[in-house]
Amino acid sequence: MKKLINDPQDVMRDSLAGFAAAHSDILKVCFDPVYVVRADAPVTGKVGIISGGGSGHEPLHGGFVGQGMLDAACPGQVFTSPSPDQMEAATAAVDGGAGVLHIVKNYTGDVLNFEMAAELCEARGIQVESVIINDDVAVQDSLYTAGRRGLGVTVMAEKICGAAAARGYDLGRVAELGRRVNESGRSMGMALTSCTVPAAGRPTFELGEDEIEMGVGIHGEPGRKRMPHRPTSELIAHMTDAILADQPIRDGGRVIAMVSGMGATPLLELYLVYRELEQILRGRKIAVSRRLVGNYITSLDMAGCAITLVQADDELLSLWDDPVLTPALRWGI
Amino acid sequence: MKKLINDPQDVMRDSLAGFAAAHSDILKVCFDPVYVVRADAPVTGKVGIISGGGSGHEPLHGGFVGQGMLDAACPGQVFTSPSPDQMEAATAAVDGGAGVLHIVKNYTGDVLNFEMAAELCEARGIQVESVIINDDVAVQDSLYTAGRRGLGVTVMAEKICGAAAARGYDLGRVAELGRRVNESGRSMGMALTSCTVPAAGRPTFELGEDEIEMGVGIHGEPGRKRMPHRPTSELIAHMTDAILADQPIRDGGRVIAMVSGMGATPLLELYLVYRELEQILRGRKIAVSRRLVGNYITSLDMAGCAITLVQADDELLSLWDDPVLTPALRWGI
Repeated sequence: MKKLINDPQDVMRDSLAGFAAAHSDILKVCFDPVYVVRADAPVTGKVGIISGGGSGHEPLHGGFVGQGMLDAACPGQVFTSPSPDQMEAATAAVDGGAGVLHIVKNYTGDVLNFEMAAELCEARGIQVESVIINDDVAVQDSLYTAGRRGLGVTVMAEKICGAAAARGYDLGRVAELGRRVNESGRSMGMALTSCTVPAAGRPTFELGEDEIEMGVGIHGEPGRKRMPHRPTSELIAHMTDAILADQPIRDGGRVIAMVSGMGATPLLELYLVYRELEQILRGRKIAVSRRLVGNYITSLDMAGCAITLVQADDELLSLWDDPVLTPALRWGI
Repeated sequence: MKKLINDPQDVMRDSLAGFAAAHSDILKVCFDPVYVVRADAPVTGKVGIISGGGSGHEPLHGGFVGQGMLDAACPGQVFTSPSPDQMEAATAAVDGGAGVLHIVKNYTGDVLNFEMAAELCEARGIQVESVIINDDVAVQDSLYTAGRRGLGVTVMAEKICGAAAARGYDLGRVAELGRRVNESGRSMGMALTSCTVPAAGRPTFELGEDEIEMGVGIHGEPGRKRMPHRPTSELIAHMTDAILADQPIRDGGRVIAMVSGMGATPLLELYLVYRELEQILRGRKIAVSRRLVGNYITSLDMAGCAITLVQADDELLSLWDDPVLTPALRWGI
């Protein structure tokens, strides 16, 4: 295993220390318990938005902490859920009196720990709502998940709920928006290579020289099938078909689209993927109204990509366009 | 070779088509000859700034086209210099009557072709100045280079010259700033793995399981030496020592720092690298006044990173902070 790390046990903390130093204008990192929080938290009268999950998916979630998006993020060890005490501390730190929304990817550990944290917070008098993100169409039930896994729609929900909270929407309305984004969104990923968890020291799974994993999870969980590597036009058609079979979008529909690299895929390839995606959608009379192309939800050093489509209406697009100032997303400020 | 591409011969054009579609609010791509240009070019009365080089280093250069940075970029085929006709067409497209600056990484093909383009443009009555970037301290002369290679200081020069041009500085003053940034900056890279050029189909070089290439070039050119892989704290100390040995920075000095991934290195690791770098600099009483951590100048799917330090004064920092709106760098707008 060749990685740019020191002791594999210290990866999360070492990396967070660098992250905090690099972005002290936007956020700070608390280390006991560990969470990333907006430098100006809590914002009085604003609904707080927090998320969290195992490390290894950067920039998710810490990279989305800042004005107009998350108020805090709880990172666990690599591919390991953060603990309820992290979530409780983060929730308390961002509560400005209007309650706090938890945006939770549907992995069993994350869901249980966020539930426990919500109970602890409510016992302290903090109002909490939760939105579960389960947008991955690849498989039903998986290694760490009952039901569908959470994937790229998480980024969309964090942006849109963050904008709604910044506008002053109340907790119920922000949570309802989060659920609507989840219901309107679908994702699917694929891997060219495995990731390698630092503490394990070897690849999570093995793929042949000309083999890919279609529908892979962001921890290297199995997807729908192994298949021969093919030109990208065919792979992206396959993924887009799977997404649209699960959630048909009518002629003239509009989407927010994301092509996210898995961590080791160069931008040159991700733009090529985006071109295929946009051509396919145009052929189906679906307009890409907004898009992200880059590394947004990753799986350590896995090569591959994931596609996310969220059906959008004027309200979602307007919230999407609101200003945001985070390490990984930034516009209008 | 597993990559997200179609025909290896079409990678540059396929990717540019996606890039153009994704960023049509900022720029457009002309395909005959190929160049990326600001949507609103030429800007009357403003010095135009262009750069270019082989593809495979994304987001460099096309990702830096936009308000406050480059007016145009000329991409060649992967790791291949663009041609003089591309540069000439791009220069003509961005000339707003105040002349055009060419920012050229020091690779023999790029330098010759930009020289030829400058002559063609001057024959058409367009005033051209050139700045050569040669910041890589690793080696003197290399596979594609007489003298030192151009590396991450290119990004710094593009940002600072772009800001100066946006302020209305004249061509001579913008070029002088570009030369000052180059003289004030140094870089060094390292590789954990080789890149694979699509048309070649196999890795450019081979590294052992526990071996790294210290001082690698962004086309996989040999560095200073192969050495055993070590904890990142030691590798970054080695690189920082090499940079500061070449250009000592006095106590109390300030720098703009960049940690750029080579393309396949996750953000988790890049922030860890940044932490090591900042600690080392603090120990030497050098303050990091501004920083970039992410993928800015890459080498296809190579794993590894490069460090760039530019000594900064109030003028350079002020220009750095000016607004910029490009696909890859965005602030203040």
